[in-house]
Amino acid sequence: MTIREAALAGKKTGLFQSCADNESMNIEDLMAGVAEGVIAIPKNIHHDFDKVIGIGKGTSTKVNANIGSSREISSVEAELEKLRVAVKAGTDTVMDLSMGGDLDEVRRGILQDCPIPLGTVPIYQAVAETVEQQGKELVEVTVDHIFKTIEKQAIDGVDFMTIHCGITRHLQQRLLRQKRIMGVVSRGGSFLLEWMSHHKKENPLYEHFDDLLAILKEHEVTLSLGDGIRPGCLADATDRNQVQELIHLGELTERAWEAGVQVIIEGPGHMPMNQITANVLLQKQMCKGAPFYVLGPLVTDIAPGYDHITGAIGGAIAGAAGADYLCYVTPAEHLKLPDIDDVHEGVIASKIAAHAADIAKGLPGAMAKDNEMAVRRNRLDWKGQIEMSLDPDKASRFREEDLSDKGPTCSMCGPYCAIQVFNRSQHNLKKEFAHAGCGNDCR
Amino acid sequence: MTIREAALAGKKTGLFQSCADNESMNIEDLMAGVAEGVIAIPKNIHHDFDKVIGIGKGTSTKVNANIGSSREISSVEAELEKLRVAVKAGTDTVMDLSMGGDLDEVRRGILQDCPIPLGTVPIYQAVAETVEQQGKELVEVTVDHIFKTIEKQAIDGVDFMTIHCGITRHLQQRLLRQKRIMGVVSRGGSFLLEWMSHHKKENPLYEHFDDLLAILKEHEVTLSLGDGIRPGCLADATDRNQVQELIHLGELTERAWEAGVQVIIEGPGHMPMNQITANVLLQKQMCKGAPFYVLGPLVTDIAPGYDHITGAIGGAIAGAAGADYLCYVTPAEHLKLPDIDDVHEGVIASKIAAHAADIAKGLPGAMAKDNEMAVRRNRLDWKGQIEMSLDPDKASRFREEDLSDKGPTCSMCGPYCAIQVFNRSQHNLKKEFAHAGCGNDCR
Repeated sequence: MTIREAALAGKKTGLFQSCADNESMNIEDLMAGVAEGVIAIPKNIHHDFDKVIGIGKGTSTKVNANIGSSREISSVEAELEKLRVAVKAGTDTVMDLSMGGDLDEVRRGILQDCPIPLGTVPIYQAVAETVEQQGKELVEVTVDHIFKTIEKQAIDGVDFMTIHCGITRHLQQRLLRQKRIMGVVSRGGSFLLEWMSHHKKENPLYEHFDDLLAILKEHEVTLSLGDGIRPGCLADATDRNQVQELIHLGELTERAWEAGVQVIIEGPGHMPMNQITANVLLQKQMCKGAPFYVLGPLVTDIAPGYDHITGAIGGAIAGAAGADYLCYVTPAEHLKLPDIDDVHEGVIASKIAAHAADIAKGLPGAMAKDNEMAVRRNRLDWKGQIEMSLDPDKASRFREEDLSDKGPTCSMCGPYCAIQVFNRSQHNLKKEFAHAGCGNDCR
Repeated sequence: MTIREAALAGKKTGLFQSCADNESMNIEDLMAGVAEGVIAIPKNIHHDFDKVIGIGKGTSTKVNANIGSSREISSVEAELEKLRVAVKAGTDTVMDLSMGGDLDEVRRGILQDCPIPLGTVPIYQAVAETVEQQGKELVEVTVDHIFKTIEKQAIDGVDFMTIHCGITRHLQQRLLRQKRIMGVVSRGGSFLLEWMSHHKKENPLYEHFDDLLAILKEHEVTLSLGDGIRPGCLADATDRNQVQELIHLGELTERAWEAGVQVIIEGPGHMPMNQITANVLLQKQMCKGAPFYVLGPLVTDIAPGYDHITGAIGGAIAGAAGADYLCYVTPAEHLKLPDIDDVHEGVIASKIAAHAADIAKGLPGAMAKDNEMAVRRNRLDWKGQIEMSLDPDKASRFREEDLSDKGPTCSMCGPYCAIQVFNRSQHNLKKEFAHAGCGNDCR
């Protein structure tokens, strides 16, 4: 019985209880969400980890960090270090997008150390092995190789997989009609499109969708339906191609649910701010409320080196509008493979966006830490503020760098600290109005 | 004749033409905006600088960088370096918030080198001189000293001044009624409140508002009505105190306009995302469309060290909702006086927010650079991408750090670059459908 089937059957498992505890939800609401499909709990039966989380309606907005080797930079140790940094910074999930080195070794190494759900994009491995090990062109990857890779990764314990099932031959032709500046910027999407045009065949992940579902179901892998046609620049956002793929993803969502498989929908990408809310609505309506996993979205194209910020702006707005899951973007985006500093900055920026969105969504208790921070700020309790910070190490370092005498105030205002001055003034005022006998309402 | 009076009289001055050119607006629209009060052009008659800008409706969203010395760190050279960094990063205005060292020397040094409008908060100087030079308590600052300082700074050429005229004795008592976690976090606001409760007198900047307007008018100083009661944490946002002050600011706006003085309204602060749009609407309605200058707003309190990001999220949303002018927030906010790296990061983050907002607002031409960036990305034209970047130095440095061979692709994807793969696939597809004779619409 899969997680989805258990939820539909009303079977209260330990997994649901553990997840409900982590989400501060009651188990009935959580199970109802899973049964409806509006919450996914990515948890492969072969991967044991402590922090079982729910992604979707009523849960906190989640953050994913992409790590992984490339052809130029591939070592298990480097990826484990990125994993450690991402987890410490507070990421909720990690995806291994490796395409360089021994991919099985890297993935298994990560899985062994991974205290949170791990995702992959299996077609990356099938293509990389075809090119690197077999010395062939990427279009020579076989359907069998793709499905064998999915199965191998499922057996290894991968909790969720990005699979670009929504690309079809019809959509490929449609792409010729509505011109884009950036074409297709999804790696998995571009691999499939080249394979399809080379072989003049339908997308095997669309054509053999039921076979795919059978594998995912057996090992309890959550299907993250990839948006291979997502816009790669603001100008391409919300075009007919993107929406056509989303229509397909909505149809596939219902088929996956019928098969007992949990689903997440992936979304843009690059997008002007004023289109984000409409895109979330579109996804929620057409995919029956399935959890929405957005990559950014990046709200401008002109800030390479700062796309953790352009992505945090878009992610916060998307989250507030109902997106459930934010894929981080690092400062290295569009320029290079992220290093550990980039991973750290990326996770923190996305955590800020997710947290701000939770407050805006009205998630119960979301503002408790903010309120406690405000209390400590008003007390000029520096140690307490640092403890309450999203990144205590950086807050502490900045406080250390402060050139003041580290008394109650900081070098921004020194003796002119507004908090101190205001509290003095209120003290005087209370005395004044107590003398004037103005009544309790003024004290 | 002041700028506002000239606009009302329909007198087409060189200043309007220069500003219209800089804003890519026609001069009639610009002058109509200034006459209505929905655009301000901060430009003191004693300060000559090239880049005359408009702030408000129909102009691009502007960014301000705060610099200035503190008691611990005060040198003209350090501030000139911050000015240089802020201008290079693209700030539209600068404010000198110095409270340490020889304040006249620092301000005059900055003004001499300042190619953009400069703002100040004159009460800072009056208070700092009272405390540091006269060895008195800050409440001993005299009304005469405050007004003399305003006049001196106006004669020096300060283009706009933050003055907290909206705080009143009634509002001070109201602050006792609706409790806040953070009280008052505006330095200028707290100084006035302590002065008022100590002397049991009305705010002199409210009481003698007409005298203030006379000085500002004589030297063409734009009045930036300070929000001394802005919320200092999310929990305090949009409370009765904040809105009461805004009501006063709206009334004072109309009085300033009648006197021929240009006005900008300052706004929050700290605020949950979902309150931002309502706050912009409130300001626009109650202040008759006067330009809105927001400090952030910061959308969470728990990210010290990253408040340039929390502020960029809030600023982008505020800008998209109609705010005209974003005061930057640096990573040092709440921890220390910003250094030059903090100034740089702060300006870039705010520029991203302002630019994203301009796109969302539909400002004509706002997306042109994004589109050009997308074209260059699709060509894998790295040099061209770096040129088009908001921060070419950082983009270039990251590209240099890339461990790939610096061929057409980068180490993120290497030979698996989606752009290359997709373009190959489209090429094949076009040939295929040309052979199949499927008609022009598919080519």
